[in-house]
Formats: sequence, structure tokens, C-alpha cells
Amino acid sequence: MQEITQSAQRVPIALGDRSYEILIGAGLLGATSSYDGLPRAASAAIVSDTNVAPLYADRLHEALAARHRRVVRIDLPAGEVHKDWASLDAIFDALLAVHCDRKTLLYALGGGVVGDIAGFAAACYMRGVDFVQVPTTLLAQVDSSVGGKTAINHPRGKNMIGAFHQPLRVVADLATLSTLPKREIAAGLAEVIKYGPIADADFLAWLEAHIDALLALDAEALAHAVRRSCEIKAGVVAQDEREGGLRAILNFGHTFGHAIETGLGYGEWLHGEAVGCGMVMAADLSVRLGLIDAAFADRLTRLIARAGLPVVGPALGADRYLELMRGDKKAEAGAIRFVVIDAPGRASVRAAPDALVADVIAAHTGA
Amino acid sequence: MQEITQSAQRVPIALGDRSYEILIGAGLLGATSSYDGLPRAASAAIVSDTNVAPLYADRLHEALAARHRRVVRIDLPAGEVHKDWASLDAIFDALLAVHCDRKTLLYALGGGVVGDIAGFAAACYMRGVDFVQVPTTLLAQVDSSVGGKTAINHPRGKNMIGAFHQPLRVVADLATLSTLPKREIAAGLAEVIKYGPIADADFLAWLEAHIDALLALDAEALAHAVRRSCEIKAGVVAQDEREGGLRAILNFGHTFGHAIETGLGYGEWLHGEAVGCGMVMAADLSVRLGLIDAAFADRLTRLIARAGLPVVGPALGADRYLELMRGDKKAEAGAIRFVVIDAPGRASVRAAPDALVADVIAAHTGA
Repeated sequence: MQEITQSAQRVPIALGDRSYEILIGAGLLGATSSYDGLPRAASAAIVSDTNVAPLYADRLHEALAARHRRVVRIDLPAGEVHKDWASLDAIFDALLAVHCDRKTLLYALGGGVVGDIAGFAAACYMRGVDFVQVPTTLLAQVDSSVGGKTAINHPRGKNMIGAFHQPLRVVADLATLSTLPKREIAAGLAEVIKYGPIADADFLAWLEAHIDALLALDAEALAHAVRRSCEIKAGVVAQDEREGGLRAILNFGHTFGHAIETGLGYGEWLHGEAVGCGMVMAADLSVRLGLIDAAFADRLTRLIARAGLPVVGPALGADRYLELMRGDKKAEAGAIRFVVIDAPGRASVRAAPDALVADVIAAHTGA
Repeated sequence: MQEITQSAQRVPIALGDRSYEILIGAGLLGATSSYDGLPRAASAAIVSDTNVAPLYADRLHEALAARHRRVVRIDLPAGEVHKDWASLDAIFDALLAVHCDRKTLLYALGGGVVGDIAGFAAACYMRGVDFVQVPTTLLAQVDSSVGGKTAINHPRGKNMIGAFHQPLRVVADLATLSTLPKREIAAGLAEVIKYGPIADADFLAWLEAHIDALLALDAEALAHAVRRSCEIKAGVVAQDEREGGLRAILNFGHTFGHAIETGLGYGEWLHGEAVGCGMVMAADLSVRLGLIDAAFADRLTRLIARAGLPVVGPALGADRYLELMRGDKKAEAGAIRFVVIDAPGRASVRAAPDALVADVIAAHTGA
């Protein structure tokens, strides 16, 4: 049994009777103490994918062995293209085949895709069972750890079918980041960077100073970045759990980003890459709306580029971008809603003239 | 525009910020006033099925026309066998095809199957939109009107995938019952009768006195039966919205009933027929457990038979019944939980020895 080598940091997520804690630290995944206090359900399932399971599922299984009479292992095909009904149904089928009851505890072991599918499976299985997130990517640790959003994709749009379902706990093991491809680290940093412009200008400055340390997977820098990201997101979500208003600012860069992902077909660009490029576009839109000066947008663009993220979008044409964005679920009756920066560290949601958006797209897409 | 001919009765369902009202009366469906106070979302959808839509969808559509800029019509294939992912996805597809946003209001027009699918679609579409139930069967009016349970079936079991999602309002138009086949009226009465033994001995006596009036669709008798059923269910659900304990008593007859439905294949017997026969079995189990005397079980069995419901189950064999019941989601880690009558008007949930259950099955199934 591997024990915790670094004492876990704890970020409390305050959501009334759905409150929970995020544990952050290296080596947490295989430590039995990470799971103290969780229900010792007779049946549990580790939902993972074919990339992550070979690396970590045995270690997690061993840490859980004394807690559950039976632990079902479910390995989904890896990748965003499999974030669909077939994967969701594979979970239901595996659970039903061995009569897992409504007290079954699901553990989502993997990145954002696994977390989203397993979380949605937990939301729907027998009308709702509990789940624990064990995110193994930077993106999942800083983004899907907080907020309870779960979903699958639909051929007509990303994350269109889902639920709000809070986990009982998140165990964010920083040691798992060492097995991530560089491209995935960069994609995760996109969501980390996001928290600066929308909520904390000081954090943006900290990131500018520590971006190289983060790319080198410096443990202390990672711990701070994950913790601060979770804290900022938690503060927003606590005020607006069901995304009535404020929470929408967390989608900075996502309206453009989703258009890129959908336009290219899911999986061509990583979600974080699309968000990185989407933030460049959204920052420019904020400049063109007269909200911030161009220097701030340039500063943000440089940081995104330094993180190894694309800052030029695919040349789909402005019309196609607009069409894709109108199909986004954040659109209200056809009007596209953009998250814009009102001032460094402050964001809001608003509509923008199509012509202005087309200018932004023209300025930031390839030939 | 058809106006309300009988003033609506209102049953309040108290669930905190998810509270709503059930309107009960003849002619409510086509009256614009039935929808007063609901959100005037730009987009709405009427989800119905190929049996009900030709009878009532135009009338509902007309009553809603002034409330919504656009009303999408979605007619699902009728029947319990279609309470599946394909029907659910047909709803998502129709909504996404015309870019319905997250403020879209769904109207579930039909019986329990339509209500369950449309309600679950509302729970999941863009992580949750609002819906209104317009139940057109007695079963749906007295059962699925209250409680917020939504679901689809899975090949491995009934109602295995779903959510708790409360409607904004229920509009129970008693006039729609006149187009129901006799067999469906009887099936609905099974759930009405259920409320007597589990919660209200006086209501059971009232039903014995009025069963013929109900079968003849006497408007006053129907209004009382629907109202009292909703009130009793509302009282239980208000105490236990997520089915932590007490609410399970509403499943009286359902453990045996689900085994009958699953064993025969969905759709062979109507849900209410299976529940009717299941109540006969559950009452006998209560007798054999020493909880009530045989006279009360006989009285209940006679009423169920008078309602035109089967009181003898299909001959699947006790082993198969037990196997099917162990797969039921109310089973906890393999132990089957039965709702039993502790005294006329009072019920609880407990396990029972397999041998005793086998005796019950042997006594109440055909050769």
C-alpha cells in the first residue's frame, strides 16, 4: 500500500447538503486514508478508460479493497469521441449485470471525459447513486473537480445531455500528472489561465511568473495552481450552483472553443486547446466592445502561447463559426452569449453584434 | 378555444422551492387558464405519442399558441416497449435540430410512459429544463403526477435509468379518461386502490362503495379518487422526496408486479395490472408474516377483482420470480425488499424469507 508522501491540501466546496472536499497532493490515489469517511457501500465500481486503467486502476482498487465487498471494473474506450450514449450504457449494463443496487458507489478514475460520463451515469443509475472523482489530468483536476457538471455529447452538440450531480469527494493526485502527455498539460493550463482574467488578476500575474515551473511539473507550483483554480471556481459555483447567471463566467473562451471543437469534429483539438484559442478570441471581442485595452488581451494571448496552446483557430469561416455558436446550449433562443472581460479579474456575459464577432474570427483564424 | 366547464380542484405539492400544483377537472387541457403563471418560454415542445397526439395534441397546442413563440411537436411511438433510449434520443434530436435552448419548456401529453420519458428528457436536456405534465390516463393522473420520478427502461430492468425531476405543474383533465380503453381504467384503479391499504383505511372503504361509479367514469367519483390519491402520495413524497425510506411504501405491490412485467416482457400486462396482482401477493405475504389477518387480504383481493384486474399471476415459477425480484432496484445487495401491510392503512418495507415468498407465489400464480 502506497502511503501519502505529501500531506493533502483540502479545498472545501460549500454547497449545503451537497458540500464536499477536494483533496490535493502527490500520491493520494493509492492511499487508503484518501477515502476515509466515505460510505462503505457493499458494491462499488471503478469507471475508467483504456488509457488510464492500466496505469492506475489496480492501485485504486487495492486502496478500496477493504472498503467494499465487491468492486466492479469498467474500462471505457478512451477519447472524447466515446463520450456518448454507448459508453454510458456500457456502465449501466455492467452495473445491472451484477445487480448493483442504489447504494452503489462509483469512482470516476481518469480525465474529464471519464468524469463526465461516470458522473452522469451516477446521476441516472437507478435515479441517482453517489460518486467520487479521482481526476488524473490537470484539466479534470482544475475544472471538472468543482461544479458537479456531468454530461455526454450528442451528435448535434457537445455536453447537450447531462445533469448537475455533485461528487462526495474529489481526490486529485498530482503524481498522476507525470504520465500525462505535454499536450494534455498545456490543455489543462488553459483552464487554469482562465481563472486569472475572469476572477483574479493577481493569479494571472502569478501564472506569468510560474508558467515554466508548471510546464516542468514542479510539484509546489502545481499544487498552488490546482488549489487556487479550485478555490476560485468553488467561490463562483457556491453562489450559482445551477448556472443561473454568475457561473456562466466560467465559460470564458468556451463559446468560441465549442465552435472549434464541433466544427473540426470532437477530438481533433483537445478541449483545453480549443478553450485556449477561444480565450484569445473572447479577449479580442472584449477589446472591440471597448471593455479592456488591447495590452491586456495581448498579455493574455502571450501567456496562452507560452503554455503551448494554439492562438490561431481553424479556418472554418465566420459564417460557420456563427452557425455553430448559435447551436451552443448557452444561446438563448438564437442569440449567442459571450463571456467577456470587463476589467482584469472581472467578467460578465453578453451578446455581441454578428459583424463584430465575424471581425474577431477573421483576425484569429488561419488562412 | 374550449373553456373549463368544471372549476379546477387544486392539490398543492409542498416540496420547498420545487413546489407545484396539480389541477384536476374536466376540460382543463384545452383551457388557456390552466397554464396561467407558467414561464412564457420562447420555445416549447409537446411530447406525446402516436395514440394520444391525434386526440389531444392540437387542442393543447392551441391553448399554448399565445404563450410560446414556437411549439415543437414530438410524437413518440406508443407503448412501454418504446420507453427506451431511442425514444429519449428522438426528443433530444428534435429539440437540438431547431436549437431549443435551456429555457425550453416541455409539455408531457399522455400516459405514464410519455410522462416518464419526457420528464427524464427534461431532466437531462442541457442538464435540465422545466416541464409540465398533462396526464391523459388515470394511472398517470394518480401516480406519476406526484413525486417527480422519471425514467426509461433498460433491457436488464424497468425504470433503471432516470432522475428525480419535479414538474412545474400537472394539468389532469378528467375528460381525457373517456377515450381510455376499459383495460386502462382498471389499470389506473390499481394505483388508486393502493393508497387505501398503505395509508388510508377510510379511503379503501370509500373505494369499495364507489368502485362501480369509478368504472362508469362518474365525474364526481373520479375527481374525488384522483384528488385523494394525489393528496396521499403528496403527503408521503413531501416527507421523503428522494425515496430514502417512507416513500418506498408507495411501491406496495410493485416488487411482485415488476417481476411479472419483466418476466412476461414489458407490455404484455399493463403496469397497473401487474401492480394489482402484485398487491394480492404482497397482502398475502403480509398475512403469512403475521401482520394482518386473512380477512383484510381477502377484502383487498375482492376489490382488485371488482376493478377488473387480474388476481392470479403468470406461472413463471417461484425461482424465476425470486430471480427477477433480486434484479429489482429496490433490492439492496441481493436482499429483496417488500412493502407489507402492518395494519389497514399502514405499511412498511422489509425483507422476507425466500420460502415464504415462494409459498405466496405458488398460491397466486396459474398452473
